[in-house]
Amino acid sequence: MPSFRFLLAALGTGFCLAVPLSAQPAAASAPTPEATVARIYAEALAHGEAYENLRALVGRFPGRLSGSPALAGAVTWAETALRRLGPDRVFRQDVMVPHWERGAPESVHLLGPGGQRVALPALALGGSVATPAGGLEADVVEVKSLAEAEARGAQLAGKIVFFNRPMDPGIANGGTAYVAAVDQRSRGPALAARLGAAAVLVRSMTQARDDLPHTGNTSFPGDAKRIPALAISTLAADRLTAAVAAATAGGPPARVSVISHARVLPDAPSHNVIAEIKGTEFPDRVILVGGHLDSWDIAPGAHDNGAGVVQSIEVLRLFRTLGLKPRHTLRCVLFTNEENGLRGSTAYIDSVKRSGQRHLLAVETDNGGFQPTGFNLGSTQGDAHARAAAKWSQLFAPYGIAAFRKGTGGADVGNLLPLGVTVAGLTPDSPRYFDTHHTTADSFDKVHPRELHLGAAALAALIWLTDTQGL
Amino acid sequence: MPSFRFLLAALGTGFCLAVPLSAQPAAASAPTPEATVARIYAEALAHGEAYENLRALVGRFPGRLSGSPALAGAVTWAETALRRLGPDRVFRQDVMVPHWERGAPESVHLLGPGGQRVALPALALGGSVATPAGGLEADVVEVKSLAEAEARGAQLAGKIVFFNRPMDPGIANGGTAYVAAVDQRSRGPALAARLGAAAVLVRSMTQARDDLPHTGNTSFPGDAKRIPALAISTLAADRLTAAVAAATAGGPPARVSVISHARVLPDAPSHNVIAEIKGTEFPDRVILVGGHLDSWDIAPGAHDNGAGVVQSIEVLRLFRTLGLKPRHTLRCVLFTNEENGLRGSTAYIDSVKRSGQRHLLAVETDNGGFQPTGFNLGSTQGDAHARAAAKWSQLFAPYGIAAFRKGTGGADVGNLLPLGVTVAGLTPDSPRYFDTHHTTADSFDKVHPRELHLGAAALAALIWLTDTQGL
Repeated sequence: MPSFRFLLAALGTGFCLAVPLSAQPAAASAPTPEATVARIYAEALAHGEAYENLRALVGRFPGRLSGSPALAGAVTWAETALRRLGPDRVFRQDVMVPHWERGAPESVHLLGPGGQRVALPALALGGSVATPAGGLEADVVEVKSLAEAEARGAQLAGKIVFFNRPMDPGIANGGTAYVAAVDQRSRGPALAARLGAAAVLVRSMTQARDDLPHTGNTSFPGDAKRIPALAISTLAADRLTAAVAAATAGGPPARVSVISHARVLPDAPSHNVIAEIKGTEFPDRVILVGGHLDSWDIAPGAHDNGAGVVQSIEVLRLFRTLGLKPRHTLRCVLFTNEENGLRGSTAYIDSVKRSGQRHLLAVETDNGGFQPTGFNLGSTQGDAHARAAAKWSQLFAPYGIAAFRKGTGGADVGNLLPLGVTVAGLTPDSPRYFDTHHTTADSFDKVHPRELHLGAAALAALIWLTDTQGL
Repeated sequence: MPSFRFLLAALGTGFCLAVPLSAQPAAASAPTPEATVARIYAEALAHGEAYENLRALVGRFPGRLSGSPALAGAVTWAETALRRLGPDRVFRQDVMVPHWERGAPESVHLLGPGGQRVALPALALGGSVATPAGGLEADVVEVKSLAEAEARGAQLAGKIVFFNRPMDPGIANGGTAYVAAVDQRSRGPALAARLGAAAVLVRSMTQARDDLPHTGNTSFPGDAKRIPALAISTLAADRLTAAVAAATAGGPPARVSVISHARVLPDAPSHNVIAEIKGTEFPDRVILVGGHLDSWDIAPGAHDNGAGVVQSIEVLRLFRTLGLKPRHTLRCVLFTNEENGLRGSTAYIDSVKRSGQRHLLAVETDNGGFQPTGFNLGSTQGDAHARAAAKWSQLFAPYGIAAFRKGTGGADVGNLLPLGVTVAGLTPDSPRYFDTHHTTADSFDKVHPRELHLGAAALAALIWLTDTQGL
């Protein structure tokens, strides 16, 4: 009401006002943006359902890798959870996904000269293949980069190539350090295979020093030759590099045995799960919120990305429970196959291109269910992060959301950006994220209920503000 | 060098410059602020010693309450840890501190009509006194506020008064919710004693729902009558309120037995521990960083405030290791007796008043060793938080420090503000903080090494920037 008061003041007291005051009461009692954002947070924090949903999803369907029964179960569970909220529409989008299986447990041993066998905790990488049934055994060549492997060339033939450039502990942001190291895992095995290597070991992608191996995908583009490839724990990598150093200093060669039963199967059917609340004013324009249903086979997938799934569902619940009727269509998209193919994202974006449907905003939550501290935003029309900060930083400040950075949302929504869609991603950027990323330890107990619910509230608030004020 | 470059540009090319260029080379190769801040972070994250120091402090000296041998041991440990860094000066400041002891374990039981005894997990509050040796037993009167207790007046005589207003789960910021509820613990027992109550039970100050009781101080000002007063877990409070509701609905009275052995002893000697690196240009002007050595008797005191102690020590180590010579005197102050008296802070501030020594900045870290997200800042000369944000938000952005809020530093440095000192506090504001605050679970395993070291780096960076650029 400040502008109305200003009008009265400008007219002066005693002036007989002709404006029909009866036209104003609705506006006079309309809640402020501050009040609505406060309602969203209070509901999420005091009565949020995301945490109990996560317990169900992760408890009942751990290891939701593409092609697995667990992922199929999670699809059905998510559909039911969304229907229960009574949105206008819930549907599946069919997607064929890669199907890779680990098979029986893999193992890696460092072989001592006296016949000792020291186990190196290991996990086969997605996309890699099995060793011969009895395993394979070879000398180890350690390299720190793809360039070094390329330079060693024929020296790698018949060897086990060990990519051991650490995810730099001196880099503050985990994601930055990950991006600076992950080429060894994603592209190292294909390169080593081309150079005739027998197998690849990769130092796990984490800044932690422990005995937990971190799996992840490796890419063998097109018809590239596939070889066994495994991640070993960072402490195992330290042990192995010590053995390589001893060999270089004149000791016996560092020799390792590897057993892996991994195999690539034909593509399998899966589904994106989608729910909508139809927009009251602009039903043809979509605001998307989403995460991904799949996880690595050995991981409960609590932070990656059960958290994103249940937060996205919670956004819909918050709108329904609080009676917030979106002007634009609010769509929750739970993507399949983020981890090893992005086929869910590709199928969704293809459908958007075909339909020509306009998206106002696409927000992803795939950085873990930790304490949220901000958003990354990207747009082809100017700097969305700066616009959001200018409009809403005061509104978000009481809730610990202070960082509005430039970005591309996340893996599933990033490719909407070239279509002119403003994209965003929730950014907890927790130093704890890469401790358990793609491991058996990405479990329910690592998620804090209030942190998870703060994230859901932040997403709902950003979406409500964009829906009512534009961005 | 921007101003020097500007001078050259203004003079134009070809002008024979009379300024002796030989005076400039050091400045020309001086690292940028970005580079120095990056060095600080990389050193803290890759080689930080705070985490191992915390393991030692918390492992060897848990339960560092004022008057305890553990606090005396921590004082000696801290002095040794600081001396090892080779600062210009390490000294103790003598302080007499309150001495309260819990004695043998307390207990609270809800008494059923059929003789059942249901244990309610409880911890006596600091400053409270013992029950009679055999305990006491009385009916329970539940209230939600000091005002309600005052209004019930004589009805409380002989009763056990139960303060049960929850720390509101709908409030996002834990500190805000704490401040809105903690009057029940800090002032409820003295009020109830004045009204003739036999004892007080207080719902634990946490937004978690579990069976962990949270202790803390309660105040009996001057000669006020002291009574037994205990915190019970939030689940125990839920059980007790159900019993009170049943009694109100016509059931048997809610009756409770309490045993406490707490006692107040004469004040005991303790010490602030102080170390300094003398300023190269302004040795008489001080930049302070500090936390508090004491903790609650039942708590390992990892987040509260072992984290602040080891982060403050780490700031000195970072300056020494990186060869950063502060222009102003950098002083690390490890305060005693924050928890139940603030006598360490009072003694320090009295010494500042007596000496007339000027402080440029006083930074406290007493909000836990979690992922740091910003600072609170306060100044009597304008808005320090806005000045810091304007100058340094871009510099801090890569490290997740995005919130510069108005505040008063913390309990130990806040009272320097009226003396004209700019104060600041590191603000992780983690939703996990109040889960374990003042409990047996405030243990080493709750602290993440990278989060702890990010905090130390943030403190060192703020101090280095203030030292070199002013604030």
